[in-house]
Amino acid sequence: MARTSGSHAAKTAPRIRAAAIRLFARHGYAAVSMRQIAGEVGVQVGALYNHTADKQSLLLELMEGHLTDLLAACDRADSPDGPVAALEAFVRFHIRYHAERPDEVFIAYMELRNLTPENFARVQTLRRRYEDRLESILRAGIAAGAFRLADARIGTLAIIGMLTGINTWFRAKGRLSLADIEAIYCDMIRQSVGA
Amino acid sequence: MARTSGSHAAKTAPRIRAAAIRLFARHGYAAVSMRQIAGEVGVQVGALYNHTADKQSLLLELMEGHLTDLLAACDRADSPDGPVAALEAFVRFHIRYHAERPDEVFIAYMELRNLTPENFARVQTLRRRYEDRLESILRAGIAAGAFRLADARIGTLAIIGMLTGINTWFRAKGRLSLADIEAIYCDMIRQSVGA
Repeated sequence: MARTSGSHAAKTAPRIRAAAIRLFARHGYAAVSMRQIAGEVGVQVGALYNHTADKQSLLLELMEGHLTDLLAACDRADSPDGPVAALEAFVRFHIRYHAERPDEVFIAYMELRNLTPENFARVQTLRRRYEDRLESILRAGIAAGAFRLADARIGTLAIIGMLTGINTWFRAKGRLSLADIEAIYCDMIRQSVGA
Repeated sequence: MARTSGSHAAKTAPRIRAAAIRLFARHGYAAVSMRQIAGEVGVQVGALYNHTADKQSLLLELMEGHLTDLLAACDRADSPDGPVAALEAFVRFHIRYHAERPDEVFIAYMELRNLTPENFARVQTLRRRYEDRLESILRAGIAAGAFRLADARIGTLAIIGMLTGINTWFRAKGRLSLADIEAIYCDMIRQSVGA
Protein backbone atom coordinates (compact mmCIF):
# COMPACT_ATOMS: atom_id res chain seq x y z
CA MET A 1 0.00 0.00 0.00
CA ALA A 2 2.77 2.36 0.92
CA ARG A 3 4.55 1.46 -2.32
CA THR A 4 1.43 2.12 -4.41
CA SER A 5 0.89 5.40 -2.68
CA GLY A 6 4.56 6.33 -3.15
CA SER A 7 4.33 5.47 -6.82
CA HIS A 8 1.14 7.52 -7.19
CA ALA A 9 2.81 10.42 -5.42
CA ALA A 10 5.78 10.20 -7.75
CA LYS A 11 3.44 10.46 -10.74
CA THR A 12 1.16 13.13 -9.28
CA ALA A 13 3.79 15.64 -8.12
CA PRO A 14 5.11 16.47 -11.61
CA ARG A 15 1.54 16.65 -12.94
CA ILE A 16 0.67 19.17 -10.23
CA ARG A 17 3.73 21.26 -11.13
CA ALA A 18 2.91 21.12 -14.85
CA ALA A 19 -0.73 22.13 -14.22
CA ALA A 20 0.31 24.98 -11.91
CA ILE A 21 2.82 26.26 -14.50
CA ARG A 22 0.17 26.25 -17.24
CA LEU A 23 -2.46 27.96 -15.10
CA PHE A 24 -0.15 30.53 -13.45
CA ALA A 25 1.33 31.44 -16.86
CA ARG A 26 -2.09 31.90 -18.44
CA HIS A 27 -4.07 33.58 -15.65
CA GLY A 28 -1.49 34.74 -13.10
CA TYR A 29 -0.77 33.30 -9.66
CA ALA A 30 -3.22 35.54 -7.84
CA ALA A 31 -6.15 34.53 -10.06
CA VAL A 32 -5.63 30.76 -9.80
CA SER A 33 -7.05 28.72 -6.90
CA MET A 34 -5.81 25.40 -5.52
CA ARG A 35 -9.21 24.05 -6.60
CA GLN A 36 -8.53 24.99 -10.25
CA ILE A 37 -5.11 23.33 -10.10
CA ALA A 38 -6.71 20.15 -8.68
CA GLY A 39 -9.32 20.27 -11.47
CA GLU A 40 -6.61 20.56 -14.13
CA VAL A 41 -4.75 17.57 -12.64
CA GLY A 42 -7.98 15.62 -12.20
CA VAL A 43 -7.69 15.06 -8.44
CA GLN A 44 -9.63 16.29 -5.39
CA VAL A 45 -8.29 19.52 -3.92
CA GLY A 46 -7.42 17.67 -0.69
CA ALA A 47 -4.98 15.49 -2.64
CA LEU A 48 -2.91 18.57 -3.57
CA TYR A 49 -2.11 19.11 0.10
CA ASN A 50 -0.33 15.74 0.22
CA HIS A 51 2.21 17.32 -2.12
CA THR A 52 2.45 20.96 -1.16
CA ALA A 53 1.60 22.98 1.94
CA ASP A 54 -0.21 25.78 0.08
CA LYS A 55 -0.22 27.84 -3.13
CA GLN A 56 2.74 29.96 -1.95
CA SER A 57 4.84 26.82 -1.39
CA LEU A 58 3.88 25.60 -4.84
CA LEU A 59 4.97 28.90 -6.43
CA LEU A 60 8.29 28.78 -4.56
CA GLU A 61 8.79 25.16 -5.64
CA LEU A 62 8.20 26.08 -9.30
CA MET A 63 10.59 29.03 -9.20
CA GLU A 64 13.31 27.21 -7.25
CA GLY A 65 12.88 24.18 -9.49
CA HIS A 66 13.26 26.33 -12.61
CA LEU A 67 16.42 28.02 -11.34
CA THR A 68 17.98 24.83 -9.95
CA ASP A 69 17.43 23.06 -13.29
CA LEU A 70 18.84 26.10 -15.11
CA LEU A 71 22.00 26.10 -12.96
CA ALA A 72 22.49 22.36 -13.43
CA ALA A 73 22.04 22.65 -17.22
CA CYS A 74 24.43 25.62 -17.31
CA ASP A 75 27.04 23.54 -15.47
CA ARG A 76 26.60 20.69 -17.97
CA ALA A 77 26.87 23.01 -20.99
CA ASP A 78 30.14 23.53 -22.84
CA SER A 79 32.31 26.27 -21.39
CA PRO A 80 35.19 26.78 -23.80
CA ASP A 81 38.43 28.51 -22.83
CA GLY A 82 38.88 32.20 -23.49
CA PRO A 83 36.44 34.97 -22.56
CA VAL A 84 35.06 35.57 -26.07
CA ALA A 85 34.29 31.88 -26.67
CA ALA A 86 32.92 31.49 -23.12
CA LEU A 87 30.63 34.52 -23.62
CA GLU A 88 29.32 33.16 -26.92
CA ALA A 89 28.68 29.73 -25.35
CA PHE A 90 26.76 31.36 -22.47
CA VAL A 91 24.63 33.42 -24.88
CA ARG A 92 23.75 30.38 -27.00
CA PHE A 93 22.99 28.27 -23.92
CA HIS A 94 20.75 30.95 -22.39
CA ILE A 95 18.75 31.54 -25.58
CA ARG A 96 18.12 27.84 -26.27
CA TYR A 97 17.33 26.90 -22.69
CA HIS A 98 14.85 29.72 -22.16
CA ALA A 99 13.17 29.41 -25.57
CA GLU A 100 12.14 25.86 -24.66
CA ARG A 101 10.51 26.87 -21.36
CA PRO A 102 8.37 29.96 -22.04
CA ASP A 103 5.87 29.34 -19.24
CA GLU A 104 8.50 28.67 -16.55
CA VAL A 105 10.47 31.77 -17.60
CA PHE A 106 7.32 33.91 -17.68
CA ILE A 107 6.38 32.82 -14.16
CA ALA A 108 9.94 33.22 -12.86
CA TYR A 109 9.84 36.91 -13.78
CA MET A 110 6.18 37.85 -13.55
CA GLU A 111 5.35 36.33 -10.20
CA LEU A 112 8.25 37.64 -8.12
CA ARG A 113 5.86 40.17 -6.56
CA ASN A 114 3.71 37.33 -5.24
CA LEU A 115 6.48 35.68 -3.23
CA THR A 116 6.69 36.31 0.51
CA PRO A 117 9.83 38.33 1.39
CA GLU A 118 11.56 35.19 2.70
CA ASN A 119 10.78 33.18 -0.44
CA PHE A 120 11.74 36.13 -2.65
CA ALA A 121 15.17 36.16 -0.99
CA ARG A 122 15.61 32.43 -1.67
CA VAL A 123 14.73 32.87 -5.35
CA GLN A 124 17.00 35.91 -5.66
CA THR A 125 19.92 33.93 -4.23
CA LEU A 126 19.52 31.29 -6.95
CA ARG A 127 19.05 33.90 -9.67
CA ARG A 128 22.16 35.73 -8.50
CA ARG A 129 24.08 32.43 -8.68
CA TYR A 130 23.11 32.13 -12.36
CA GLU A 131 23.99 35.77 -13.08
CA ASP A 132 27.37 35.15 -11.43
CA ARG A 133 28.24 32.64 -14.19
CA LEU A 134 28.03 35.43 -16.75
CA GLU A 135 29.63 38.00 -14.45
CA SER A 136 32.69 35.73 -14.02
CA ILE A 137 33.09 35.54 -17.78
CA LEU A 138 32.86 39.33 -18.07
CA ARG A 139 35.37 39.86 -15.22
CA ALA A 140 37.80 37.43 -16.81
CA GLY A 141 37.46 39.23 -20.15
CA ILE A 142 38.04 42.64 -18.55
CA ALA A 143 41.05 41.32 -16.59
CA ALA A 144 42.54 39.80 -19.75
CA GLY A 145 42.08 43.08 -21.64
CA ALA A 146 39.75 41.29 -24.09
CA PHE A 147 36.62 43.23 -23.08
CA ARG A 148 36.09 46.98 -22.97
CA LEU A 149 33.36 47.25 -20.35
CA ALA A 150 33.12 49.71 -17.46
CA ASP A 151 31.24 47.52 -14.98
CA ALA A 152 30.93 43.72 -15.01
CA ARG A 153 27.84 43.68 -12.78
CA ILE A 154 25.86 46.19 -14.88
CA GLY A 155 27.12 44.45 -18.01
CA THR A 156 25.70 41.19 -16.66
CA LEU A 157 22.29 42.68 -15.95
CA ALA A 158 22.22 44.41 -19.34
CA ILE A 159 23.05 41.21 -21.22
CA ILE A 160 20.59 39.07 -19.21
CA GLY A 161 17.84 41.65 -19.85
CA MET A 162 18.61 41.61 -23.57
CA LEU A 163 18.54 37.80 -23.68
CA THR A 164 15.47 37.28 -21.55
CA GLY A 165 13.47 39.75 -23.61
CA ILE A 166 13.62 37.30 -26.54
CA ASN A 167 10.88 35.18 -24.95
CA THR A 168 8.45 38.10 -25.10
CA TRP A 169 8.58 38.39 -28.91
CA PHE A 170 10.10 35.27 -30.46
CA ARG A 171 7.69 33.15 -32.53
CA ALA A 172 8.89 29.84 -33.98
CA LYS A 173 7.17 30.60 -37.30
CA GLY A 174 8.48 34.15 -37.55
CA ARG A 175 10.78 35.71 -40.16
CA LEU A 176 13.95 34.39 -38.48
CA SER A 177 14.75 31.04 -36.87
CA LEU A 178 16.07 30.78 -33.33
CA ALA A 179 19.49 29.95 -34.83
CA ASP A 180 19.41 33.22 -36.83
CA ILE A 181 18.54 35.15 -33.70
CA GLU A 182 21.29 33.39 -31.73
CA ALA A 183 23.82 34.48 -34.34
CA ILE A 184 22.66 38.12 -34.32
CA TYR A 185 22.67 38.21 -30.50
CA CYS A 186 26.14 36.64 -30.34
CA ASP A 187 27.50 39.40 -32.56
CA MET A 188 25.70 42.20 -30.73
CA ILE A 189 26.69 40.97 -27.27
CA ARG A 190 30.30 40.36 -28.26
CA GLN A 191 30.42 43.89 -29.70
CA SER A 192 28.62 45.31 -26.63
CA VAL A 193 31.56 44.30 -24.40
CA GLY A 194 34.01 45.73 -26.93
CA ALA A 195 35.32 42.38 -28.21
CA MET B 1 -24.99 71.39 -11.15
CA ALA B 2 -23.62 70.19 -14.49
CA ARG B 3 -20.52 72.33 -13.93
CA THR B 4 -19.89 70.88 -10.51
CA SER B 5 -20.33 67.39 -11.83
CA GLY B 6 -17.98 68.08 -14.75
CA SER B 7 -15.39 69.47 -12.39
CA HIS B 8 -15.75 66.45 -10.12
CA ALA B 9 -15.36 64.14 -13.09
CA ALA B 10 -12.19 65.94 -14.17
CA LYS B 11 -10.73 65.41 -10.71
CA THR B 12 -11.95 61.84 -10.28
CA ALA B 13 -10.74 60.34 -13.57
CA PRO B 14 -6.99 60.80 -12.89
CA ARG B 15 -7.49 59.56 -9.31
CA ILE B 16 -9.12 56.39 -10.66
CA ARG B 17 -6.22 55.84 -13.06
CA ALA B 18 -3.65 56.43 -10.31
CA ALA B 19 -5.43 54.02 -7.94
CA ALA B 20 -5.74 51.36 -10.66
CA ILE B 21 -2.03 51.69 -11.52
CA ARG B 22 -1.05 51.27 -7.85
CA LEU B 23 -3.34 48.28 -7.28
CA PHE B 24 -2.64 46.50 -10.58
CA ALA B 25 1.11 46.92 -10.09
CA ARG B 26 1.00 45.55 -6.56
CA HIS B 27 -1.53 42.72 -6.86
CA GLY B 28 -1.97 42.12 -10.59
CA TYR B 29 -4.95 42.97 -12.78
CA ALA B 30 -6.72 39.66 -12.27
CA ALA B 31 -6.64 39.92 -8.48
CA VAL B 32 -8.01 43.48 -8.24
CA SER B 33 -11.75 44.20 -8.28
CA MET B 34 -13.54 47.37 -9.34
CA ARG B 35 -14.75 47.52 -5.72
CA GLN B 36 -11.14 47.68 -4.46
CA ILE B 37 -10.32 50.44 -6.93
CA ALA B 38 -13.38 52.41 -5.77
CA GLY B 39 -12.29 51.88 -2.15
CA GLU B 40 -8.79 53.20 -2.92
CA VAL B 41 -10.26 56.30 -4.62
CA GLY B 42 -12.83 56.74 -1.84
CA VAL B 43 -15.94 56.59 -4.03
CA GLN B 44 -18.82 54.13 -4.43
CA VAL B 45 -18.18 51.42 -7.00
CA GLY B 46 -21.08 52.75 -9.11
CA ALA B 47 -19.21 56.04 -9.53
CA LEU B 48 -16.37 54.24 -11.34
CA TYR B 49 -18.75 53.28 -14.12
CA ASN B 50 -19.29 56.97 -14.92
CA HIS B 51 -15.65 57.00 -16.01
CA THR B 52 -14.95 53.59 -17.50
CA ALA B 53 -17.07 50.79 -18.97
CA ASP B 54 -15.35 47.99 -17.05
CA LYS B 55 -12.00 46.77 -15.71
CA GLN B 56 -10.80 45.73 -19.18
CA SER B 57 -11.46 49.24 -20.53
CA LEU B 58 -9.58 50.68 -17.58
CA LEU B 59 -6.57 48.44 -18.29
CA LEU B 60 -6.60 49.41 -21.96
CA GLU B 61 -6.86 53.09 -21.01
CA LEU B 62 -3.81 52.78 -18.70
CA MET B 63 -1.69 51.00 -21.30
CA GLU B 64 -2.71 53.25 -24.20
CA GLY B 65 -2.22 56.30 -21.99
CA HIS B 66 1.27 55.14 -21.01
CA LEU B 67 2.33 54.52 -24.62
CA THR B 68 0.73 57.71 -25.99
CA ASP B 69 2.51 59.79 -23.33
CA LEU B 70 5.77 57.94 -24.09
CA LEU B 71 5.48 58.67 -27.82
CA ALA B 72 4.69 62.34 -27.19
CA ALA B 73 7.66 62.68 -24.79
CA CYS B 74 9.92 60.91 -27.29
CA ASP B 75 8.86 63.39 -29.98
CA ARG B 76 9.61 66.32 -27.65
CA ALA B 77 13.05 64.94 -26.68
CA ASP B 78 16.25 66.06 -28.41
CA SER B 79 17.08 64.08 -31.52
CA PRO B 80 20.52 65.20 -32.62
CA ASP B 81 21.88 64.63 -36.12
CA GLY B 82 23.99 61.59 -36.90
CA PRO B 83 23.16 57.98 -36.01
CA VAL B 84 25.58 57.66 -33.06
CA ALA B 85 24.33 60.84 -31.37
CA ALA B 86 20.70 59.94 -32.13
CA LEU B 87 21.17 56.47 -30.64
CA GLU B 88 22.72 57.88 -27.46
CA ALA B 89 19.90 60.42 -27.13
CA PHE B 90 17.30 57.64 -27.50
CA VAL B 91 19.02 55.49 -24.87
CA ARG B 92 19.20 58.34 -22.37
CA PHE B 93 15.58 59.33 -23.02
CA HIS B 94 14.32 55.75 -22.61
CA ILE B 95 16.19 55.14 -19.35
CA ARG B 96 15.09 58.41 -17.71
CA TYR B 97 11.49 58.21 -18.85
CA HIS B 98 10.96 54.63 -17.72
CA ALA B 99 12.83 54.98 -14.41
CA GLU B 100 10.31 57.63 -13.37
CA ARG B 101 7.27 55.44 -14.06
CA PRO B 102 7.99 51.98 -12.62
CA ASP B 103 4.35 51.03 -11.99
CA GLU B 104 3.14 52.05 -15.48
CA VAL B 105 6.03 50.20 -17.12
CA PHE B 106 5.46 47.11 -14.98
CA ILE B 107 1.77 47.01 -15.95
CA ALA B 108 2.50 47.72 -19.62
CA TYR B 109 4.59 44.55 -19.81
CA MET B 110 3.06 42.26 -17.18
CA GLU B 111 -0.59 42.62 -18.05
CA LEU B 112 -0.44 42.10 -21.81
CA ARG B 113 -1.86 38.60 -21.28
CA ASN B 114 -4.96 40.10 -19.67
CA LEU B 115 -5.93 42.24 -22.66
CA THR B 116 -8.61 40.97 -25.04
CA PRO B 117 -7.13 40.14 -28.48
CA GLU B 118 -8.56 43.35 -29.95
CA ASN B 119 -7.14 45.51 -27.17
CA PHE B 120 -3.81 43.66 -27.33
CA ALA B 121 -3.58 44.58 -31.03
CA ARG B 122 -4.22 48.25 -30.22
CA VAL B 123 -1.48 48.27 -27.57
CA GLN B 124 0.95 46.43 -29.86
CA THR B 125 0.39 49.04 -32.60
CA LEU B 126 1.42 51.82 -30.23
CA ARG B 127 4.37 49.85 -28.87
CA ARG B 128 5.53 49.13 -32.41
CA ARG B 129 5.34 52.84 -33.18
CA TYR B 130 7.74 53.51 -30.30
CA GLU B 131 10.09 50.70 -31.36
CA ASP B 132 10.07 52.17 -34.87
CA ARG B 133 11.74 55.33 -33.54
CA LEU B 134 14.77 53.27 -32.52
CA GLU B 135 14.61 51.07 -35.62
CA SER B 136 14.81 54.15 -37.87
CA ILE B 137 17.97 55.25 -36.06
CA LEU B 138 19.51 51.80 -36.51
CA ARG B 139 18.56 51.65 -40.21
CA ALA B 140 20.06 55.10 -40.80
CA GLY B 141 23.27 54.01 -39.04
CA ILE B 142 23.51 50.83 -41.10
CA ALA B 143 22.81 52.73 -44.34
CA ALA B 144 25.48 55.31 -43.49
CA GLY B 145 28.01 52.56 -42.73
CA ALA B 146 28.26 53.82 -39.14
CA PHE B 147 26.73 50.69 -37.55
CA ARG B 148 27.79 47.07 -37.95
CA LEU B 149 24.52 45.28 -37.26
CA ALA B 150 22.98 42.36 -39.19
CA ASP B 151 19.31 43.14 -38.59
CA ALA B 152 17.78 46.47 -37.53
CA ARG B 153 14.54 44.89 -36.26
CA ILE B 154 16.27 42.32 -34.03
CA GLY B 155 18.73 45.00 -32.94
CA THR B 156 15.76 47.16 -31.88
CA LEU B 157 14.17 44.39 -29.83
CA ALA B 158 17.53 43.50 -28.25
CA ILE B 159 18.23 47.09 -27.21
CA ILE B 160 14.70 47.71 -25.92
CA GLY B 161 14.91 44.48 -23.86
CA MET B 162 18.25 45.55 -22.41
CA LEU B 163 16.87 49.00 -21.52
CA THR B 164 13.56 47.90 -20.12
CA GLY B 165 15.23 45.33 -17.87
CA ILE B 166 16.75 48.22 -15.86
CA ASN B 167 13.42 48.78 -14.10
CA THR B 168 13.51 45.27 -12.65
CA TRP B 169 16.75 45.84 -10.71
CA PHE B 170 17.53 49.57 -10.44
CA ARG B 171 17.31 50.99 -6.92
CA ALA B 172 17.80 54.73 -6.38
CA LYS B 173 19.98 54.09 -3.31
CA GLY B 174 22.12 51.43 -4.97
CA ARG B 175 25.85 51.41 -5.70
CA LEU B 176 25.44 53.44 -8.91
CA SER B 177 23.27 56.45 -9.76
CA LEU B 178 20.93 56.44 -12.73
CA ALA B 179 23.40 58.76 -14.50
CA ASP B 180 26.20 56.19 -13.99
CA ILE B 181 23.98 53.46 -15.43
CA GLU B 182 23.00 55.67 -18.37
CA ALA B 183 26.68 56.16 -19.19
CA ILE B 184 27.48 52.43 -19.01
CA TYR B 185 24.44 51.57 -21.15
CA CYS B 186 25.32 54.26 -23.73
CA ASP B 187 28.76 52.72 -24.16
CA MET B 188 27.51 49.12 -24.30
CA ILE B 189 24.71 49.91 -26.75
CA ARG B 190 26.93 52.00 -29.01
CA GLN B 191 29.45 49.16 -29.03
CA SER B 192 26.69 46.56 -29.57
CA VAL B 193 25.87 48.11 -32.95
CA GLY B 194 29.54 48.26 -33.84
CA ALA B 195 29.96 52.04 -33.50
